[in-house]
Amino acid sequence: MHAVGVDIGGTKIAAGVVDEEGRILAKTRRSTSPDDVASIDRAIAEVYEEFSEQYAVGAVGVAAAGFVSTDRNTVLFAPNIAWRDHAIGDAVRGLVGADVRVVVENDANAAGWAEFRFGAGRDAADMLMLTIGTGLGGAVVTDGKLVRGRWGFAAEVGHVRVVPDGHVCGCGHNGCWEQYASGSALVREARAAAVADPARAADLLRRAGGDPHAVSGPDVTAAAEAGDELARALIAELGRWIGEGAASMAAVLDPEIVVVGGGVADAGDLLFPSVNAGFLAQLSARGHRPEAPIVGATLGNDAGIVGAADLARQD
Amino acid sequence: MHAVGVDIGGTKIAAGVVDEEGRILAKTRRSTSPDDVASIDRAIAEVYEEFSEQYAVGAVGVAAAGFVSTDRNTVLFAPNIAWRDHAIGDAVRGLVGADVRVVVENDANAAGWAEFRFGAGRDAADMLMLTIGTGLGGAVVTDGKLVRGRWGFAAEVGHVRVVPDGHVCGCGHNGCWEQYASGSALVREARAAAVADPARAADLLRRAGGDPHAVSGPDVTAAAEAGDELARALIAELGRWIGEGAASMAAVLDPEIVVVGGGVADAGDLLFPSVNAGFLAQLSARGHRPEAPIVGATLGNDAGIVGAADLARQD
Amino acid sequence: MHAVGVDIGGTKIAAGVVDEEGRILAKTRRSTSPDDVASIDRAIAEVYEEFSEQYAVGAVGVAAAGFVSTDRNTVLFAPNIAWRDHAIGDAVRGLVGADVRVVVENDANAAGWAEFRFGAGRDAADMLMLTIGTGLGGAVVTDGKLVRGRWGFAAEVGHVRVVPDGHVCGCGHNGCWEQYASGSALVREARAAAVADPARAADLLRRAGGDPHAVSGPDVTAAAEAGDELARALIAELGRWIGEGAASMAAVLDPEIVVVGGGVADAGDLLFPSVNAGFLAQLSARGHRPEAPIVGATLGNDAGIVGAADLARQD
Amino acid sequence: MHAVGVDIGGTKIAAGVVDEEGRILAKTRRSTSPDDVASIDRAIAEVYEEFSEQYAVGAVGVAAAGFVSTDRNTVLFAPNIAWRDHAIGDAVRGLVGADVRVVVENDANAAGWAEFRFGAGRDAADMLMLTIGTGLGGAVVTDGKLVRGRWGFAAEVGHVRVVPDGHVCGCGHNGCWEQYASGSALVREARAAAVADPARAADLLRRAGGDPHAVSGPDVTAAAEAGDELARALIAELGRWIGEGAASMAAVLDPEIVVVGGGVADAGDLLFPSVNAGFLAQLSARGHRPEAPIVGATLGNDAGIVGAADLARQD
Repeated sequence: MHAVGVDIGGTKIAAGVVDEEGRILAKTRRSTSPDDVASIDRAIAEVYEEFSEQYAVGAVGVAAAGFVSTDRNTVLFAPNIAWRDHAIGDAVRGLVGADVRVVVENDANAAGWAEFRFGAGRDAADMLMLTIGTGLGGAVVTDGKLVRGRWGFAAEVGHVRVVPDGHVCGCGHNGCWEQYASGSALVREARAAAVADPARAADLLRRAGGDPHAVSGPDVTAAAEAGDELARALIAELGRWIGEGAASMAAVLDPEIVVVGGGVADAGDLLFPSVNAGFLAQLSARGHRPEAPIVGATLGNDAGIVGAADLARQD
Repeated sequence: MHAVGVDIGGTKIAAGVVDEEGRILAKTRRSTSPDDVASIDRAIAEVYEEFSEQYAVGAVGVAAAGFVSTDRNTVLFAPNIAWRDHAIGDAVRGLVGADVRVVVENDANAAGWAEFRFGAGRDAADMLMLTIGTGLGGAVVTDGKLVRGRWGFAAEVGHVRVVPDGHVCGCGHNGCWEQYASGSALVREARAAAVADPARAADLLRRAGGDPHAVSGPDVTAAAEAGDELARALIAELGRWIGEGAASMAAVLDPEIVVVGGGVADAGDLLFPSVNAGFLAQLSARGHRPEAPIVGATLGNDAGIVGAADLARQD
Repeated sequence: MHAVGVDIGGTKIAAGVVDEEGRILAKTRRSTSPDDVASIDRAIAEVYEEFSEQYAVGAVGVAAAGFVSTDRNTVLFAPNIAWRDHAIGDAVRGLVGADVRVVVENDANAAGWAEFRFGAGRDAADMLMLTIGTGLGGAVVTDGKLVRGRWGFAAEVGHVRVVPDGHVCGCGHNGCWEQYASGSALVREARAAAVADPARAADLLRRAGGDPHAVSGPDVTAAAEAGDELARALIAELGRWIGEGAASMAAVLDPEIVVVGGGVADAGDLLFPSVNAGFLAQLSARGHRPEAPIVGATLGNDAGIVGAADLARQD
Repeated sequence: MHAVGVDIGGTKIAAGVVDEEGRILAKTRRSTSPDDVASIDRAIAEVYEEFSEQYAVGAVGVAAAGFVSTDRNTVLFAPNIAWRDHAIGDAVRGLVGADVRVVVENDANAAGWAEFRFGAGRDAADMLMLTIGTGLGGAVVTDGKLVRGRWGFAAEVGHVRVVPDGHVCGCGHNGCWEQYASGSALVREARAAAVADPARAADLLRRAGGDPHAVSGPDVTAAAEAGDELARALIAELGRWIGEGAASMAAVLDPEIVVVGGGVADAGDLLFPSVNAGFLAQLSARGHRPEAPIVGATLGNDAGIVGAADLARQD
């Protein structure tokens, strides 16, 4: 059975028809407004109807950046879109027909599920996925099942505290893993380094027009690729935090594989050696257990669409 | 179906016949040697045969303080007993008959499963259990299933790092949660406080015969019960670390309930308010989610027997 | 001998004639521009000439928020005024006459010196002063002498690291004491608490018009004075960091008294008990040594004028 | 004028006649008992009288590992010798004559003073000395004066807290710098590494007879000299903590030079590059200030004798 997957961003939705092998047969987009949640519901309905004309699609999966209710019908709260206890599932069924199956899922969970089913984790039964962009999201699969927790709040690994009294997080707590293992953390540290030691940061400062507060993530990546020592050290430090945190997660979850996706994962060979080193340096019971490999995600930006569609197909 | 549960300690095993409601119908003990693993195998076989004479028992569950293989037949490694890749299941079947089902499980997992099925967690589908004695062990249940991880190393929550460069752990890493949320941590901090500020520690020092390095866990508990300010502060600090760490675990697992067992949980009303306060102070997305209650375990020392027996009955 | 003291702020200078007992006999102000360092030099010259008409003044002391050269003639660098290796002393002498003694001093050092000579520290020979406003500055007196260090960079206590990988500082490093023991830290933590737990922060949010990011320092102080539990906890936490850091400083300097000045010190009875508790809890060799009292500064905003004038009088 | 310097160890005293250039003209030793403080007094008197027969010595300086009173007559408390408010000065004068000048000084202060006057710091006016053996002691000189603080407890830099909730210290507090920057810290981390990752620690384990808890400091140094990767990483980590802490001290004291002595300093080229790197990485206001060099002490084990003698000569 085919299913429609919809990945909802801040100002647009991306959607696709996904077959049972995780292949996207067709794709489309719609512009939406983050403040107008009805516009998003309508856009979902539109893409469903557009696809239904050409494909036999039995379900719609929606990947949403927010907390999703246990029945996977409602977004309880979202930081960047005006969803507050908004029942997307009901709303979409009201537009396209009550018999259409609509399943809402947290976007990091959806992307993780896609990697688990069709991507880097497809041969594993137990997987930890880390999606590292501006922030740090996660997905957990144990024994073949997505772990959603009692109320759908599981796998928020970015809010595990890794440094007491550490960097303040958007969530209002201090020392969250996200503040050490994310693109935002990389930029913050790069800018700080440019203030603390301008000579060492000469390359970064040049790329940022001389303003330490203008250094960007792409500046750091480009400088690192060009061999700049500070930029490489900053990425290595980011990798260390990713790996060390993953070791703590492995103490809890014992995954068979750790998949790292999101924009930060694109740093590739600059990043992964230090992720691995940090992971192994902190892994408990080393020598008594197999060591899970840490690998890059393979599905890229389509993961949300693919995962949401596939979850909508599951019972 | 009844099953036999066996809980293996350092110098003895405790065993019982457990019915499907988790009730222990009969109990027995045997002395064993931690250096003679065959003596343990024989003792398990003996209690099985003893019980079989009176009860129809279809399976034996063994709770072992060590890492257990994925097929739940072998202890891969144990810190306090000489098991090194020792196949308890095969050994016991060799003694009692190849048709007897023998299932080995990590002891914290077994105790957690008992609480989940018959104790404090019996109404929940998603549970985090913390067993806090000298160390800190755990068990994780998601959606009704015990989380063992890919190789049986899951739920080792005591080795999540909570303080970079923090107290050294027996595992060889620094800053493990176990070093902040355990009876050993309580004793270490009590002794340090007695050195740092003898006047404030006068009550503790009196109980320890004047030697700060002789202060014990029961000294702290007794002093706290008698109203000593420092002892109460030390237990509150322990509680804070338990609760704050549980909040990090809730970010990953979103449990419906957190069950605290082990000897430290006996501190009861002295401990739990600070556990709760620490948990709520660090819980992410507070206000957007229900708050899992943190409760004491109810099955006491029998939990290992009951849980092992019940797990042996499961497929 | 009278001396003129000048305290240079971002947009104005305040000046006074100070007698040998530290009394201000006359005061005046001038507007200046932080980007036009010559305007500041001229304003200093003007106030000197104005005062000279009425008083016999033999020296000018200038308190400047920046790094001051060893010969106390030049501001090497300042974060908020455009001084870059600017020789204030030479410039002012060029305007008022080469025979006038002009001494430049870091503003926190000047304020500390005033407290040492005429204020809260006047009976001590060894003093640590903490000036806590938006940031955290300091002054150190040992055996009656102001400690300037080899190049004039001493007493920058706000940049002692107290939390590895802690909050990022304007200086480009992480975990500086200033990020935990300052008005900025109080505001940051108050805003974070309002995000993390809006219910607990109801009073603060009401004062800030409902916007967690608009909570201000005066909001916290006012709420604490009105009895709000969160506001009191936030100020107590600030006090704890001040006191604990002061204990580390006492390990290095063994002061007879710790003087706390700056706007944050105005929190008074809400703040000082927790400062003291934090200090005593972390003081090394407690029981073997006297415990330095921690007291509020007594000279208020005039301390910079008084201290700069007095330092100009010293050889 | 010559002076006698006496350095008091746990089971013996070492003494010498020291001239005004810091040269030792004669040396001797006596066995003593740490539990019999009178035996130490007598031994000091003996060496004084022995030297007086051959040299014109006008004063005796005593270097003692303990807290020394403001009048430098009495050891208030010592961790390893049974001094409790014991007036060494009075006792020695009672034995050798009331007209002999006897000055007691903390041993780290005495050694630091020797380096300042005649050793690595002889060209500086502001010096920070770190004496790193089993523990971490210090001495501070500002503007040519030894900083003793109000009650003689200054320069206890080993008890500055560098990691909140960090390793427990013998002083009863957590996270003292001494627990990160000392020979004890090196051994603790080496043993932990041997537990956490035996494969990586193969060389260390071989040297320690296979027992991770038997790894010693010399094992680490020898392995590092032989090129072992782990041993080198452990020493580099030690160096990082020394350097980063020194940067915090530089924020307070702005020394012209940092001198590192004690047994750990013997690691030399294995250690100092990482000390320097850590120092520069954390130095505040880098680029706006000169960078103090970090150098090894030059007087070795004689520093206590030389410094005590010289201090006895000062007013």
